[in-house]
Amino acid sequence: MNMITNHMPTEELQALDAAHHMHPFTDANGLAKKGARIITQGKGVWLTDSRGEKIIDGMAGLWCVNIGYGRPELAEVAARQMNELAYYNTFFQTSHVPAIALAAKLAELAPGDLNHVFFAGSGSEANDTNIRLVRRYWQVKDMPEKRVIIARTNGYHGSTMGGGSLGGMSPIHAHGGKIDGIVHIGQPDWWSEGGDMTPEEFGLMRARELEEKILELGVDKVAAFIGEPIQGAGGVIIPPSTYWPEIQRIVDKYGILLIADEVITGFGRTGNWFGSQTFGIRPHIMTIAKGLSSGYQPIGGSIISDEVFNVVAEGGELYHGYTYSGHPVAAAVALENLRIIEEEGIIDHVRNVAHPYLKERWDALTDHPLVGEAKLVGLMGSIALTPNKATRAKFASEAGTVGFRCRERCFANNLIMRHVGDRMIIAPPLVIKPEEIDILITRARKSLDECYAGLKEDGLLKSA
Amino acid sequence: MNMITNHMPTEELQALDAAHHMHPFTDANGLAKKGARIITQGKGVWLTDSRGEKIIDGMAGLWCVNIGYGRPELAEVAARQMNELAYYNTFFQTSHVPAIALAAKLAELAPGDLNHVFFAGSGSEANDTNIRLVRRYWQVKDMPEKRVIIARTNGYHGSTMGGGSLGGMSPIHAHGGKIDGIVHIGQPDWWSEGGDMTPEEFGLMRARELEEKILELGVDKVAAFIGEPIQGAGGVIIPPSTYWPEIQRIVDKYGILLIADEVITGFGRTGNWFGSQTFGIRPHIMTIAKGLSSGYQPIGGSIISDEVFNVVAEGGELYHGYTYSGHPVAAAVALENLRIIEEEGIIDHVRNVAHPYLKERWDALTDHPLVGEAKLVGLMGSIALTPNKATRAKFASEAGTVGFRCRERCFANNLIMRHVGDRMIIAPPLVIKPEEIDILITRARKSLDECYAGLKEDGLLKSA
Repeated sequence: MNMITNHMPTEELQALDAAHHMHPFTDANGLAKKGARIITQGKGVWLTDSRGEKIIDGMAGLWCVNIGYGRPELAEVAARQMNELAYYNTFFQTSHVPAIALAAKLAELAPGDLNHVFFAGSGSEANDTNIRLVRRYWQVKDMPEKRVIIARTNGYHGSTMGGGSLGGMSPIHAHGGKIDGIVHIGQPDWWSEGGDMTPEEFGLMRARELEEKILELGVDKVAAFIGEPIQGAGGVIIPPSTYWPEIQRIVDKYGILLIADEVITGFGRTGNWFGSQTFGIRPHIMTIAKGLSSGYQPIGGSIISDEVFNVVAEGGELYHGYTYSGHPVAAAVALENLRIIEEEGIIDHVRNVAHPYLKERWDALTDHPLVGEAKLVGLMGSIALTPNKATRAKFASEAGTVGFRCRERCFANNLIMRHVGDRMIIAPPLVIKPEEIDILITRARKSLDECYAGLKEDGLLKSA
Repeated sequence: MNMITNHMPTEELQALDAAHHMHPFTDANGLAKKGARIITQGKGVWLTDSRGEKIIDGMAGLWCVNIGYGRPELAEVAARQMNELAYYNTFFQTSHVPAIALAAKLAELAPGDLNHVFFAGSGSEANDTNIRLVRRYWQVKDMPEKRVIIARTNGYHGSTMGGGSLGGMSPIHAHGGKIDGIVHIGQPDWWSEGGDMTPEEFGLMRARELEEKILELGVDKVAAFIGEPIQGAGGVIIPPSTYWPEIQRIVDKYGILLIADEVITGFGRTGNWFGSQTFGIRPHIMTIAKGLSSGYQPIGGSIISDEVFNVVAEGGELYHGYTYSGHPVAAAVALENLRIIEEEGIIDHVRNVAHPYLKERWDALTDHPLVGEAKLVGLMGSIALTPNKATRAKFASEAGTVGFRCRERCFANNLIMRHVGDRMIIAPPLVIKPEEIDILITRARKSLDECYAGLKEDGLLKSA
């Protein structure tokens, strides 16, 4: 039937792509003019494109391919499960072994009393689940007015109407609307917004916006606070050390629920199983996806505390769920992925090998004239591009212009590194080896050099 | 690491399930007391449970396993793609062959100028995409006030905040909220709500509620109408023949967008590739999922007309998308599933063999004292249970009591048939053979008999 394969000429694939495939977060006409780069293979930290170029993937796909590409164990498990039981639902008093086994494993791995798993197909869907869970929790406790969720500007929690509204990105709100009962406080982005404060002072100040917001709304109206331990899509914003302890203090003081969005920070990314452990956060609900299956399968979910589960269960049926909740193939693959992370000591590799090795080289990029700040937690890092390091100045050009140019140089140099505004970010597969880190850094530096030369030539090194 | 397998005693699996796995649309405490039935294998239309019982699946999983369970071709494709390229995103000017090939194939299969595909991970997510698409469409056309979407009471469009709000089920709205800018009109359920009208009169009347609602809101406020060609989760509500032509007339007259939610009706379920073809509907957007991969993989999407795509593309970047949009493994499996449906003539089998054979036997169930109406389009059917066929009376007991009892008898007789209120519904795999239809009907009749006897004994045959 379908003769569209990797062997087709790149131009034909690009034409079909432009004619029929509408890409996420993309200017379709712009991409059509240019033609998409066609990725054909992945192995370890390496991608191959349709022209045979080898690209080092500094973003682990989209923050997800934690164990690297091309692990045949996962393909074997997928095929076996698909042959045995390719699908079954868990809506009507039935269950199946992959969902049970994965839920039990997650309860074992998750800290504290996070013992219950509600499966979704993605992080977006899981955050929609969380909106329902926290509001339902307070309904059952006879406080239905407690329904507002406090989130953060420049946070990212997915792209459904619910997830996009929890997120604090105004272009997403603009395209289709923002749902009610969600309010935003400032983000702990010291580099861009910290002014003359120390990072520690600024972290405390931003955390205390939560307390102010609770008092402004009235605690009887507030259901929960949601945050990513480290903001990912916002630009790998690593909060000052004072931030999360103060958030935890406020959450505890007012007895609201805490949702940690671990979609990016979960499953080893920060050097622990969960970012909550790295930052000492005690959430009532964790959102998971991405690294859960290393992206080999679409799967997400919410890990829920005994307290929240028991209250919601007491309320009888929760009118919520997805066809693919706990999909047996996705669950079996996720379980195999967790086995590999655990048995191969991949989190130890992050802590003891990859993080220290990358950190030294990442920090050294601050000697580059374009690089202000370099930050790295586990294998999640960012550099802030600036025309003036001392003043942390922004560029005079529209935000993102410089970042995009730098990203284009990386792409041309066969390094996947993403830009968010004028920050460059990385989150490579957790299995990256020191010699691969060397290649990544060499290409990053070359790209920065080329970007710098281009900016100079075009007179774009001016401060705002 | 994980020793939880099919070989574990059922009771232990049930205990782990209750301890850690929170099921969708389920009373968790009720299920924990009873213990979930553990499904371990699927082949064709047959499921096996952990006690070795063979169950005939009259619901195709959850309306999705169109080609039946256990097709090794799909497992092979999944494994091959997972080894080659297990994941890559399509956000940042990249693409991959499975997404391109699936998009091109869907554009070929979909009617009219539905030539563009935006991928999601599920039907829920795709409907969230649709909310953004239709609102964005009017924004780009400089009519940002046109943002209200008209949907229907007892429709089902998923369980995200967006999808659940498009759906017209009040318990879902109650648990966590309903988003703004969505309003509901009545459903074309003649059996329950048609009173003394003929079905044709009633169908026209209900369709005209759309026109009334547009005029009430003002056409300058209305973005779109969304409907399932046949309401699925609402109880397989097959509309009177007058309904869809009148809806189409109204949509055309006022120039609003039409979204056909084909999540259940797509990919052969109604005897055509899409339910829109069966009912002569010309949508601007179709929501797809379920049968797209026969449920073997979590995948969904929106198929979009040239007109809607061109306008949205003209607006530049659409700030929307999912990590798993166009997931390469899910897309490759979906493509193989479409190949099987096409090359094996499965839709012809529905039209020429399975539908006519089942229809005769399904209609014959109306000789049963409990069965009022029996309806079937393609392989999607319902029977209405009633204490009085002549008056189409409801039972005196709480709605759903009789349906649940009947469903429990089916389950005990190793037939999966679902109840929605006091309707029993079926949607078996499309590959079901006549001899399997005989078994399904025999078990259904036995279950109805047992249900009837039980209702009699318990004095529950009274009309409301």
